Amino acid sequence: MLFSQEEYDARLAGVRARMARQGLSALLVTDPANLYYLTGYNAWSFYTPQVLFVPADGPMLLFTREMDAGGATRTSWLPPENIVGYPERYVHRPHLHPFDWVAFALRERHLIAPAAAGCVGLEMDSHFFSPKAYRSLVNAVPEWTLVDCFELVNWVRSVKSPAELELMRQAARICNGAMEAAVAGIAVGVRQCDAAAAISSAQISGVDGIGGDYPAIVPMLPTGEAADTPHLTWSEERFEAGQAVVVELAGAYHRYHAPLARTVVLGPPSDRLAKLADAVADGLDAVLTEVQPGVPVHELARTWNRTLAKYGLEKPSRIGYSIGIGYPPDWGERTISLRSEDETVLAENMTFHLIGGMWMDNYGYELSESIRVSPDGVEPLTSFPRELLQKGS
Amino acid sequence: MLFSQEEYDARLAGVRARMARQGLSALLVTDPANLYYLTGYNAWSFYTPQVLFVPADGPMLLFTREMDAGGATRTSWLPPENIVGYPERYVHRPHLHPFDWVAFALRERHLIAPAAAGCVGLEMDSHFFSPKAYRSLVNAVPEWTLVDCFELVNWVRSVKSPAELELMRQAARICNGAMEAAVAGIAVGVRQCDAAAAISSAQISGVDGIGGDYPAIVPMLPTGEAADTPHLTWSEERFEAGQAVVVELAGAYHRYHAPLARTVVLGPPSDRLAKLADAVADGLDAVLTEVQPGVPVHELARTWNRTLAKYGLEKPSRIGYSIGIGYPPDWGERTISLRSEDETVLAENMTFHLIGGMWMDNYGYELSESIRVSPDGVEPLTSFPRELLQKGS
Repeated sequence: MLFSQEEYDARLAGVRARMARQGLSALLVTDPANLYYLTGYNAWSFYTPQVLFVPADGPMLLFTREMDAGGATRTSWLPPENIVGYPERYVHRPHLHPFDWVAFALRERHLIAPAAAGCVGLEMDSHFFSPKAYRSLVNAVPEWTLVDCFELVNWVRSVKSPAELELMRQAARICNGAMEAAVAGIAVGVRQCDAAAAISSAQISGVDGIGGDYPAIVPMLPTGEAADTPHLTWSEERFEAGQAVVVELAGAYHRYHAPLARTVVLGPPSDRLAKLADAVADGLDAVLTEVQPGVPVHELARTWNRTLAKYGLEKPSRIGYSIGIGYPPDWGERTISLRSEDETVLAENMTFHLIGGMWMDNYGYELSESIRVSPDGVEPLTSFPRELLQKGS
Repeated sequence: MLFSQEEYDARLAGVRARMARQGLSALLVTDPANLYYLTGYNAWSFYTPQVLFVPADGPMLLFTREMDAGGATRTSWLPPENIVGYPERYVHRPHLHPFDWVAFALRERHLIAPAAAGCVGLEMDSHFFSPKAYRSLVNAVPEWTLVDCFELVNWVRSVKSPAELELMRQAARICNGAMEAAVAGIAVGVRQCDAAAAISSAQISGVDGIGGDYPAIVPMLPTGEAADTPHLTWSEERFEAGQAVVVELAGAYHRYHAPLARTVVLGPPSDRLAKLADAVADGLDAVLTEVQPGVPVHELARTWNRTLAKYGLEKPSRIGYSIGIGYPPDWGERTISLRSEDETVLAENMTFHLIGGMWMDNYGYELSESIRVSPDGVEPLTSFPRELLQKGS
């Protein structure tokens, strides 16, 4: 196992403490990152329904598609008798849902009534928990009061253990290597897809004998005028002289992520891009200086906004989010956002992707860092020249 | 644009014809593959809510996160005024949901009342439509009768146009190249992650000047005893002599997929593996011989089961599914499954991933093909020696 049984026990204890405060006598976990966090189960099986039943007391039960139960047995610490496969005939059927079967399996095990003593928490905004799955539970277990758990496990994940931080540092080393591959690969006349192939290869092979895992998001390469919007992937087009390429990628190690963004310009940057790069670097520096336990995250957002205002700029979107375990389509934890509306206070061993991303009209710029909140400030996890990267003259 | 406006118009007409038969006066589309099919919108933005409003008459309206509206304008054929960004402050908030905003935006545009004339269809089992999003709509639009559309757009997608088939043939060429990279890369002493890196690089660089897109699923490499379960990804372990490696991967081109599975054995296969390989090859051949328009898919499943029974084997899971456009985490269309419970009848230009996957105790075998139903039989899209691939003696 990657983590000690003591660590897994502490994670479950953390989840149950939160369950008690929220009045939950059971929790149904569907987010694959949360399944991995609590059980170690790791496979590309989350495109069919899966759920971990976490009662206030007693063993957890993991339900997967029948053909995936073997993978769960191989990768999780749960004893095989607590891993239950639902029959294949429930997969992708219009008038059946696997959770119809799961609910009855819980009933047969006499686990419905004890959980009805309080409320039962659901991950109402998890990616792989559909409205159909939700309604299946509503119909199958009328005696349960189903409530949103509001990212309960994700919140427990927000403070990392020493073992988790070690994995994130390895992920960051892989990330640095992948960014090196990106900067080496992006050049005038090269197809975008060939640069992306070099990045992906570096992400998976890893560095210094550390093999990489698949990142939750593919390399993103908005290029030229299209760099005024994030989240575009590569094309077959060739890079042209003068283009700026916004590269956002991550290193991943045993599902832990360290993302990083840099902007590569092919030749001298335009004045407006150089000015934007200065403003963003200034803003990011100001925020990094302020990171330490006890600081409310909205203060970071305000510092960013104040610095940008000096340059006559503003940014409506958040400047970062909590990171850690990730499965497609997101490496964020969907809890803390670094923005003025967020009331969270920084704590030691929280980890963030801190992003200066500016999407203007027909151009854009990104500069980011993966960081850990250290006892007295900040530990940058990623390490790469923090500047606009010029290639060619 | 990748497809003609006539083709997009025909797709929408197909969707509206089905909407009329199902009594829907509007449809809310959330599956990114369906968004791409109807509008061309393509970005890695589906980790935050997105929705396409398709009324029975009048223009479609696409709602995305504000920062993604630019990406939608750049990649889709929709006029910019029909692409609406919701404010950043609705992203990842516990007590707000973007669909609260979207529902009111539809109300301001006087689009709620006309849609209330019939039912409004939802993709109740789509990956990126959460119960929270569903309840947001229930609360915000009490005058709508919300019903499951039962994969309405996915069903329209099941028969491919000539232009789509051309993209799938290119995807298949990329897939063949990626499988070549897999067979070349898997060898005794090589780390699994290095083989995966070679596969990923080949998938993205493509072949013969055709650049690859990212497949919806990363290369899967269950190895040795762990090959008794599907869906495991790579590790840092090195391949060992005698191991069998089940490789499942796809080529992707402009989001269209052609998947393929082969099994590579490092040295002479065990008797039981060789016997299993013979049975699967026999079963797959028997099924391929039977494919033609007018054949019910459950007949294919029965033929497979009859052939396997001759070898004393059976397989509880489906032997394939409809393929085409895919986004993570799945390249299947979630409509037609090749199994005995499915009543669908094969039609010309349907496309499938036909899979002989056998997961035994401590070993396994997979052999598959991406196929098109041609006017008088079958067109295999992928092309790779259809056998157990032995490396080393």
